[in-house]
Order: sequence, then structure tokens, then C-alpha cells
Amino acid sequence: MTDVLPVTFTAGTTGLWRIERITTVTGDGLPAAARLLVEEEAPVAGPRVPPTVATSAPGWVLCGTVSNQRYTTAAELALLNARSPALGRPGATVASLIPITKSQAWWEMAQDERRGILEETSHHIRRSMDYLPAVARRLHHCRDLGGPFDFLTWFEFAPENAAAFDDLLGELRNTEEWTFIEREVEVRVERASV
Amino acid sequence: MTDVLPVTFTAGTTGLWRIERITTVTGDGLPAAARLLVEEEAPVAGPRVPPTVATSAPGWVLCGTVSNQRYTTAAELALLNARSPALGRPGATVASLIPITKSQAWWEMAQDERRGILEETSHHIRRSMDYLPAVARRLHHCRDLGGPFDFLTWFEFAPENAAAFDDLLGELRNTEEWTFIEREVEVRVERASV
Repeated sequence: MTDVLPVTFTAGTTGLWRIERITTVTGDGLPAAARLLVEEEAPVAGPRVPPTVATSAPGWVLCGTVSNQRYTTAAELALLNARSPALGRPGATVASLIPITKSQAWWEMAQDERRGILEETSHHIRRSMDYLPAVARRLHHCRDLGGPFDFLTWFEFAPENAAAFDDLLGELRNTEEWTFIEREVEVRVERASV
Repeated sequence: MTDVLPVTFTAGTTGLWRIERITTVTGDGLPAAARLLVEEEAPVAGPRVPPTVATSAPGWVLCGTVSNQRYTTAAELALLNARSPALGRPGATVASLIPITKSQAWWEMAQDERRGILEETSHHIRRSMDYLPAVARRLHHCRDLGGPFDFLTWFEFAPENAAAFDDLLGELRNTEEWTFIEREVEVRVERASV
């Protein structure tokens, strides 16, 4: 265990982010809620236990971990690190949480086949890089944790970059990689003033 | 979520496997125990909760998931699938559980750098393939689960192949990849007659 960062996204009645809309793109959706709470847990030595959620509470809880790179090459990582802004910029008052699940056919492919589709064919990394530093991004892995999604990607940007962000989503959804997406939901949020 | 298989290894007083020895190779060891219980959990839709262990029980519990390939190419996977036996062969009465943790320097490398060291330099996949079908192998991932180890590898073989298995371990421990191993323990077990 080294520097894996667990992050929990709780949709309910509290949290810094006001949920503007929840859009079901593919497969099952997610229930409506008023606020989204994003919590980074202190890394712990013991097994990870998901937070207990009162059954009467509205909303949902999704957990993931910021973990090691799975496809990015050293050359790409150097470019990404040079261009990627930190989360929490004062002007980045809009954000989007996109939980996705890929198909069994995707996961049964070997590493080089998945890399080939993700980048050589679909240019997932290069396309995302084109929107840096405007659209900050953090990927959370959850397939091994047993939840309903494989990944939770979190994006932060200024309101004036919302259209550009939608362009990025449109580009990605037209790629070969996206033919392996079985479930996708977009949770668009805005930073709440109180 | 597709076909991720959670597996729990419990060292205590029950289980099919009698613990012959626990060898600390690098870093902290693991406490002694009499038996090892290997349980495959039915995949569940909810978040994964580690089993509760009575504090008076001796031993330890390690959890991992059989998940997608992280380094293996399609060509390598075809060879591995053709040569790999199933677990549970009647003659494979000896087994070895090897929990390992790699360093932060390993995990901070990009995908192509880690693949380069693992296979192009250290020949981890090719060396393991040379011992198939004699030494059956299953890898369990646990870095994202929050436990003390990154991987749990399980090997099964007949007693007459024990020396060959030790040769494989000796080869791997002399590779560049192993310079990134911070903790390694070997738990050698034999199938119990009762």
C-alpha cells in the first residue's frame, strides 16, 4: 500500500456542490438528490469499509480510489502533469461526476488491446489533454471495490468552459472505446454559495 | 462491474490447507497459524465489506480480487490460457500464498515504464510461463482495497515440483522488478487430509 487515495461521493442533502441535473446516458440512472458531498478519506492501514448510509437518507453513495495510471505512457504523463491544474481553483465553480461501467468484453481483453482502443484508436488521453488546463480531471477506480461502476471521473471548470466540456464528452462518446460502455450517468453540479 | 472475483485468505484454525511454514522475505512478516482457509465469495452488487474477524482468533485475514490483466499482451495471454491448468488438481497438494507490496517509486511510474521493467527487463511473464502447467498460478489484486499488501499470488503444484517452484521464486527475486518489492512473505501450505 502506498499512496492510494479513497474518495467518497455522497448525494443527499449536504455538501459543497448543488446538483443541477442527473442525466442518464446509457443503462440505469441514479436517483435525484439536492447536494453532492465529496470526501477524501485519510488513507488507512486496514481494509476499506464503505461508509454506513442511513436507509432513510435520500440519494446514493459511490466510492473510488485515486490509484496508479493504467494506460498512460511516461511521455503522456509528463505532458499531463505539466498541463493539469489542481482541483479547487476559485473560478472552477462547475463540476461533473461521470460514473461509468465498461462491458465484460472490454475487461476480458489483454492490456495492449485495451490500450490500443483507448488511445491509438479513440485518442482518449490526447482528446482530454486538448481541454487542459480549462477542464481539470481526476479519475477514481472502483471496479475492484465491488460497487456498481468501474470508474468515477470528476471534472472541474469555469462556467464559460461548460460548452467546451460538453464538446469533449460528445467527442469521447463517438469513439470506439465508448462502444464498450454499458452504463454512464452524468451528474452536473455547481458550487453552492452556502 | 463485471466478473471480478473476491477471494479471502484466512489464517487460523480451519481450512483445507495446513500451514507448513511462513517465511519473511522482505519487510514485516505475518503471525503463525495452523490452517489456511481460502474462500471465493459470490460477486455481490454492493460495496465489498471485509469479513469480521473475532479479535480472539489467531492468525490474519487478507482479501484480494481476481481482476483484469494489467500488463499481459494478447499474444502472451493466448499462450498463458493454453498452458494454464485449473486450480484444484488432485495431485497439486502443495500450495504457496505470496503477499507482496511494491514501493511508491513503482506505483508512480507510468504504465509503459512498469511494463518495461516487469517483462522486457525482468521477464516475469515469460519466466512464470516456463513453469506451466506444473505450477498453477492465480493473481489477486488488493492495492485499491486498502489492505497492507498490493498483491496476493497463489500457486498450486505437486510435491515433486516444489524444487522447481523454489527455482522460479529464486529467479524472480533476482530481477530488477524485485528491487521495487518492499514487503514479501511466503506462506507454504499442504493440503490437509482432514
